[in-house]
Amino acid sequence: MTQERFAERHIGTDAPSQYTMLATLGYASVDDLVRAAVPRAIHLENFRARGGSPLPPAATETEALAELRELAARNTVRRSMIGLGYYGTVTPAVITRNVLENPSWYTAYTPYQPEISQGRLEALLNFQTMVTDLTGLGTANASMLDEGTAVVEAMLLARRASPVKTPVFIVDTDALPQTKALLAARAEPLGITVLERDLAAIADTGAAELPEAFGVFVQYPAASGRVWNPASVIAAVREARGIAVVAADLLALTLMTSPGELGADVAVGTSQRFGVPLGFGGPHAGYLAVRAGLERQMPGRLVGVSVDADGNPAYRLTLQVREQHIRREKATSNICTAQVLLAVMASMYAVYHGPTGLRRIAERVAASTAALAAALTAAGVEVVHSAVFDTLQVRVPGRASAIVTAAHEAGINLWPISGDVVQLSVDETTTAEELARVAVCFGVSGGIVGVPGEWPLPPGLARTSAYLTHPVFNTHHSETAMMRYLKRLADKDYALDRGMIPLGSCTMKLNAASEMEAVTWPEFAALHPFAPESDVAGSLELITQLERWLTELTGYDTVSLQPNAGSQGELAGLLAIRGYHRANGAADRTVCLIPSSAHGTNAASAVLAGMRVVVVACDAAGNVDLDDLRAKITQHAATLAALMITYPSTHGVYEHEVVAITEAVHEAGGQVYVDGANLNALLGYARFGDFGGDVSHLNLHKTFCIPHGGGGPGVGPVAAKAHLAPFLPGHPLAQRNAHPARTADGGAGMIEHGGTPVSAAPFGSPSILPISWAYIRMMGEAGLVEATGAAVLAANYIAARLRDHYPVLYTGDAGLVAHECILDLRPLKEATGITVDDVAKRLIDYGFHAPTMSFPVAGTLMVEPTESEDLAELDRFIEAMISIRAEADAVAAGAFPADDNPLVAAPHTAHALIAGEWSHAYTREQAAYPVPTIVRNKYWVPVRRIDQAYGDRNLFCSCPPPEAFA
Amino acid sequence: MTQERFAERHIGTDAPSQYTMLATLGYASVDDLVRAAVPRAIHLENFRARGGSPLPPAATETEALAELRELAARNTVRRSMIGLGYYGTVTPAVITRNVLENPSWYTAYTPYQPEISQGRLEALLNFQTMVTDLTGLGTANASMLDEGTAVVEAMLLARRASPVKTPVFIVDTDALPQTKALLAARAEPLGITVLERDLAAIADTGAAELPEAFGVFVQYPAASGRVWNPASVIAAVREARGIAVVAADLLALTLMTSPGELGADVAVGTSQRFGVPLGFGGPHAGYLAVRAGLERQMPGRLVGVSVDADGNPAYRLTLQVREQHIRREKATSNICTAQVLLAVMASMYAVYHGPTGLRRIAERVAASTAALAAALTAAGVEVVHSAVFDTLQVRVPGRASAIVTAAHEAGINLWPISGDVVQLSVDETTTAEELARVAVCFGVSGGIVGVPGEWPLPPGLARTSAYLTHPVFNTHHSETAMMRYLKRLADKDYALDRGMIPLGSCTMKLNAASEMEAVTWPEFAALHPFAPESDVAGSLELITQLERWLTELTGYDTVSLQPNAGSQGELAGLLAIRGYHRANGAADRTVCLIPSSAHGTNAASAVLAGMRVVVVACDAAGNVDLDDLRAKITQHAATLAALMITYPSTHGVYEHEVVAITEAVHEAGGQVYVDGANLNALLGYARFGDFGGDVSHLNLHKTFCIPHGGGGPGVGPVAAKAHLAPFLPGHPLAQRNAHPARTADGGAGMIEHGGTPVSAAPFGSPSILPISWAYIRMMGEAGLVEATGAAVLAANYIAARLRDHYPVLYTGDAGLVAHECILDLRPLKEATGITVDDVAKRLIDYGFHAPTMSFPVAGTLMVEPTESEDLAELDRFIEAMISIRAEADAVAAGAFPADDNPLVAAPHTAHALIAGEWSHAYTREQAAYPVPTIVRNKYWVPVRRIDQAYGDRNLFCSCPPPEAFA
Repeated sequence: MTQERFAERHIGTDAPSQYTMLATLGYASVDDLVRAAVPRAIHLENFRARGGSPLPPAATETEALAELRELAARNTVRRSMIGLGYYGTVTPAVITRNVLENPSWYTAYTPYQPEISQGRLEALLNFQTMVTDLTGLGTANASMLDEGTAVVEAMLLARRASPVKTPVFIVDTDALPQTKALLAARAEPLGITVLERDLAAIADTGAAELPEAFGVFVQYPAASGRVWNPASVIAAVREARGIAVVAADLLALTLMTSPGELGADVAVGTSQRFGVPLGFGGPHAGYLAVRAGLERQMPGRLVGVSVDADGNPAYRLTLQVREQHIRREKATSNICTAQVLLAVMASMYAVYHGPTGLRRIAERVAASTAALAAALTAAGVEVVHSAVFDTLQVRVPGRASAIVTAAHEAGINLWPISGDVVQLSVDETTTAEELARVAVCFGVSGGIVGVPGEWPLPPGLARTSAYLTHPVFNTHHSETAMMRYLKRLADKDYALDRGMIPLGSCTMKLNAASEMEAVTWPEFAALHPFAPESDVAGSLELITQLERWLTELTGYDTVSLQPNAGSQGELAGLLAIRGYHRANGAADRTVCLIPSSAHGTNAASAVLAGMRVVVVACDAAGNVDLDDLRAKITQHAATLAALMITYPSTHGVYEHEVVAITEAVHEAGGQVYVDGANLNALLGYARFGDFGGDVSHLNLHKTFCIPHGGGGPGVGPVAAKAHLAPFLPGHPLAQRNAHPARTADGGAGMIEHGGTPVSAAPFGSPSILPISWAYIRMMGEAGLVEATGAAVLAANYIAARLRDHYPVLYTGDAGLVAHECILDLRPLKEATGITVDDVAKRLIDYGFHAPTMSFPVAGTLMVEPTESEDLAELDRFIEAMISIRAEADAVAAGAFPADDNPLVAAPHTAHALIAGEWSHAYTREQAAYPVPTIVRNKYWVPVRRIDQAYGDRNLFCSCPPPEAFA
Repeated sequence: MTQERFAERHIGTDAPSQYTMLATLGYASVDDLVRAAVPRAIHLENFRARGGSPLPPAATETEALAELRELAARNTVRRSMIGLGYYGTVTPAVITRNVLENPSWYTAYTPYQPEISQGRLEALLNFQTMVTDLTGLGTANASMLDEGTAVVEAMLLARRASPVKTPVFIVDTDALPQTKALLAARAEPLGITVLERDLAAIADTGAAELPEAFGVFVQYPAASGRVWNPASVIAAVREARGIAVVAADLLALTLMTSPGELGADVAVGTSQRFGVPLGFGGPHAGYLAVRAGLERQMPGRLVGVSVDADGNPAYRLTLQVREQHIRREKATSNICTAQVLLAVMASMYAVYHGPTGLRRIAERVAASTAALAAALTAAGVEVVHSAVFDTLQVRVPGRASAIVTAAHEAGINLWPISGDVVQLSVDETTTAEELARVAVCFGVSGGIVGVPGEWPLPPGLARTSAYLTHPVFNTHHSETAMMRYLKRLADKDYALDRGMIPLGSCTMKLNAASEMEAVTWPEFAALHPFAPESDVAGSLELITQLERWLTELTGYDTVSLQPNAGSQGELAGLLAIRGYHRANGAADRTVCLIPSSAHGTNAASAVLAGMRVVVVACDAAGNVDLDDLRAKITQHAATLAALMITYPSTHGVYEHEVVAITEAVHEAGGQVYVDGANLNALLGYARFGDFGGDVSHLNLHKTFCIPHGGGGPGVGPVAAKAHLAPFLPGHPLAQRNAHPARTADGGAGMIEHGGTPVSAAPFGSPSILPISWAYIRMMGEAGLVEATGAAVLAANYIAARLRDHYPVLYTGDAGLVAHECILDLRPLKEATGITVDDVAKRLIDYGFHAPTMSFPVAGTLMVEPTESEDLAELDRFIEAMISIRAEADAVAAGAFPADDNPLVAAPHTAHALIAGEWSHAYTREQAAYPVPTIVRNKYWVPVRRIDQAYGDRNLFCSCPPPEAFA
């Protein structure tokens, strides 16, 4: 008896719908359609017999969850006192339930369409305000991928911002080990020399000893737990026109003088301990804040306040929005996205606790730490540093290993620094009973209870400045108030739970509830990234299985899940190519060919991997210009490192000549990097590794169902052939760097990933990997093939239905597109004056999120419906687009003035339609209800069209005062 | 170091807010205020020293969840094949996440305000349509408390509807044991004789053997699993003008001829196996459907279609809305509420699977059952009945116990019918592997796989009629579509996540996320109510602790958690009083005194407990008229059974003379029943048991935080003094009927509950008990005292602030109200013509749920803010009420015509304000945004005011066709 197939729930179009759509297109089956679109030369069966899937057959949702429970049961959750940037924290249940488990938050997209994103933009503005307040700096961005990469970005910012030309960056010895590893890894390809110095000692003796450098990095409090005053070091560096970067613990900052007050230019860190589960290392939201004057040097996303068409305050992304696309290899960073969902959680933790609550938590942590230190000292056990916040180093000559083992047996993980020193960190979850249990491991007995107000911060570092004084941090302190605040924000936004988000290149497919379920299980959520291997056996097994499946699905030999964003996957892949060439004595192979149609991040990542970008032209059909490619290869034959190519292309077509392209690169000694952003158009039909790819990154948040979370988290695994494995991301603190490897005979060996890290945590963002695991496990290869077919069918159906109203810019074989199509709106503008922007904003009035605007071609909309939309929703979108075309034609025909019509005035708020006199050339009803189906299901946008220029001119990036809304 | 106190999150007003509010009232502290309001004679410290709480000290949310996890770990989830009305089912994750775990659904109130309840009303209409379609009857209600009580209600309906005067009800022998126990228990006080007959045998031999009866009850399929055709029995009973009641399995009905087609008048049953977890017995939604002509005899809630002020279809509760209040002792039933949240889940299960999916599930179950039967038979093991759907009886002479034990060890629970017969049921979760494992326990090995289409239904019973043909059951089959449908419905509704629901007598307080968390843990959710005691040790311990705490908090000696609604708690309490008198040879004590101010359900319950209601007058201050009470006591001295009194009263005041009242009743030999609906005004300050109560029911869904779920589930435990324990609800299939008992010395003994059952499951609705457990555990007695104080403070603050605009009808000592206040709107109507209804509907435009309307006094609003609202929300409500008063005054002053003003036209939909010309005496803006704060947080009501009379005249209770909305 067949149990229910998950694929039927995941895929929106059922058989009768697909039949209808196929009839429109003139194909007999979905398989026929895809086979006509995908070039024959790369069809999977050329490489593997159909049905020969090494993936397990599809599990039902019940079965997959049962397997996940078994994997979870193989983990052991001990209380972590390992610290090192990862701390136990209590996620308020109201935040777990109403943010992390609420599709209105987790299925939202990056807020590029600000009018329908005011809720999450407000939450991010709260995050920025929280960071600027606590760090004492002027501007913070909307989060970084993690603390380690945030420090790297700060180093790169320092290099850009400092006039000092010496490529030296000074790093304090007492910094987190993973941060130091990342700095070393990322500095080397860019020619930066990282010098490690004992800055605390220098601060004591005089900062004159510092070498010339464009910047300095200090951990505050230090990795060892020591609290020291870096003001003199900072002053000396700034005196020499270098940039001072401080990684600061946000909780400590509620008690300690802020980096801004100490003179720092840049503060970075993590907001993990503000209510975001450990999650075996991630995802968490890092942060980065800068002093006035450095705002325009910041990487990542920045939320700012602007005004809408009615002059009301309205939020938007400002400055760096998609700067990779615009500035490409000249971009300041390759980071595309942020960790929005986690930043929202951390900001809401601050909103819920408020300044008093946060300080109370910090005082408890500090007092508990002090009490433990006092108990150990009183018993004659040496505590290394006396000035600390939450972390102690304890000197136990020769006994460190035995003590760590004893604690492990007692259910607590400590951190061995050496054979003689044990380190431990207290956090908000630490109980007096646990402190006593730890003390016993050190041979000290007796109750340990912290005394409020008693902690040993050095004089001069006690915080005196106020923080979180804005009303938002002082209002929502009851659970009822918090629940309503979260609902109110979510109500402003448009996410997948309202309707289609047909964003080309973003693959906004279903994030199934069953896929999300395991994310919040404590067995996955409460693991420290550096916990002993035996504690995390279940997670490692899940990672192993997922890596193996991804290997099979892409035709590569091995996969690293460490990169925690697509951009980081790109970087990791390019660094692997770089490492490979250098290992083969070809260090001069540094040219990276990139087609002009490529995602801008490609170029930015290549630069960060120490490569030189050479652009290859595209032909009129949107394909790589093969002649130009051959010419560029010839021109750079000796220095050719790689070609980066997206397949199917960012133009949404399957290029016919892809095999010829990869062969040409290989013949010239180059490596082929296939950008996997569009894998959803290919899965089960063709594999990158089969048609010439040496390495690819994938986007688990696109093809493999990790929700976009309003702009992160993402996971960007890098998949490669075996010859690149020695250069894939390793990690100095990983439980293991051996990963499953596909062998020629289909066997299952292991292979070492020997490269440098690209993320702070060894496995990147493991707590969300159960999502992709569950997706693949429940779809099976057959389901994935069906999903690809349904996605390609939907895109071609939209292209065919809309072609007469908006030209489809590019098509491939048989006049077909892949999983997305580019609608050319330039003729519309020519004929009617109506712009892409007008159409996008008008779609909001119709209850839609706009498709991707002006990427990859200005003046176009790129539509990607995905396989998860049903025919009714596709038709609703088509109806809206046709209706909008008619509205534009009416403008052209003079029925509405060019400056007063439903398109240029879109979107329309309820308030704008109801309040005051109506003096427009169209009716209120035409504005609100252009098609009758909207009446019963109207999404009311909270603000009118936002003034982008005003926001860029008047940069304001923290919470506006309540009076602004009066 | 103090960890965070949950009480500070639960209580909305912080210390500064309370200070402000106390200043308004002229009290120095909350404690002063409450002590001034509560009569001194009943203060708790008269009975127990303050600080002497036997409750454990408050746990943090983290600690409470850890304890719950420990309790959960003491349960063992085996696969249940016990059946007997409770079956394994797969709750689609999209429903769990977006209904059961979504506050927009679970914090909603009963849809008495239909305009703001269209989402859940649509879901309930789907439920009704699902039931009528599957049962083949004309009208179904919006759910019953469980199958067992639904059968009882059907029996009572039959008695009302049949002209047959003989008080005999015939019950088939092969009915569920718990149903038979309930019928016996409930029939006896009402003088109904239940006759058990082997109706299948009679059907074979000729129905002439049936005695005269007003009704007959058949289980279909039978409890033994046997499928037989009851058409001839039904025909015979109907021929004799009796009513035929059939309890039918909804899943079986997808394959079998419906009760309606077999001629039944009434069908009842449970919808549990449509995606609602077993939950150790509940809550689940029972159902009841009737043929045309019996609609007005139905108990419970019924959703109907009416039209709104614009003539659009709109949903509302119809006919029986609060009929207990109106008809009191003449009500057809004492059932106040339904199991809305569970009915919504079951209806969505049908929406998600559709007719084809449901049939596929049923076919799999039937084929699996047939395959197992065939395998057993082939191996020489006797299967008792050959015509079955999902349940087998297997004859294993002398070996039943050993086989059940073997299966238990193999992880599966079977049901021993006797020493010779084992019964088992297959459900949608049963796998082929499990079938094989079961067979092995019977000594049969080999794979067992069902063959689709092969099952042994008797000829003539195969279903031929269509069902679930409405589009709603044939549209939302992908998870994306389902998620959006649920969101769309939730968006129409107003629940606690939007704002205050100040419903007097309903205590709409916070349902904290941490309280809700354990509800969906499989260790609590996947237990069968009749599972072996060893499997459910954790749940029994949780129940024991909760009973003990409730005992302590109320001053009683023992508590039963079996009643699954307040009305059932009342009934159980009154039945206990009845049993006590009869055991003491005072069977003629049947008079129940009920004050005129009492909740109507009191009277209805008394009648169902076989009592005669005598009404006691109230004085002008709203208190029981002591003189009238004494007179009535004297008049009925010999037959006095009980006084039912609500404390504080339904008038929202603490009656000063309560001790005198209870003493007078006791002196006359009566028992005192204290209705605990208003316990939230008393908890921690006084206890029913201390001031004379013999028995009370509590409402865990009011005082103890179980969410209202849009109109259920509820839990109505009954608490009593020890002398009533022998008459509290027992259950023939309970793992134990011994319950914790408070002993005079504070010890912790056990006491037997020896009465008859009032619910189908031994512990009622255990899966939601972790909510109340967590609330008490996290508040501790100190927190509960603070909550009471905050609730009383909030009510008095509103009374004081609104007194000048709307008179406060009743106050008690010191001019104070209790936890709610009655605003008298009769003077307003007199002065302005504006009615309670107008004010209630206008409040929707202001973003509020109306207070309780015209209860307990017509023409009033009863406001209960609860302790969970913060001062900002209280002030927002006060501002709205004052503004509405000003609008009404403007009508009186002639600024608006009496028939065209924002009040009589309220509520206003966006569409009504935007579409077409505006020709009203007030502006669109006045309608939508009467106060400026609404602009940024507007809730748009989906329909205009609903025509109540039209709906009652044109009874239409299933999904309207889509064209109705054109």
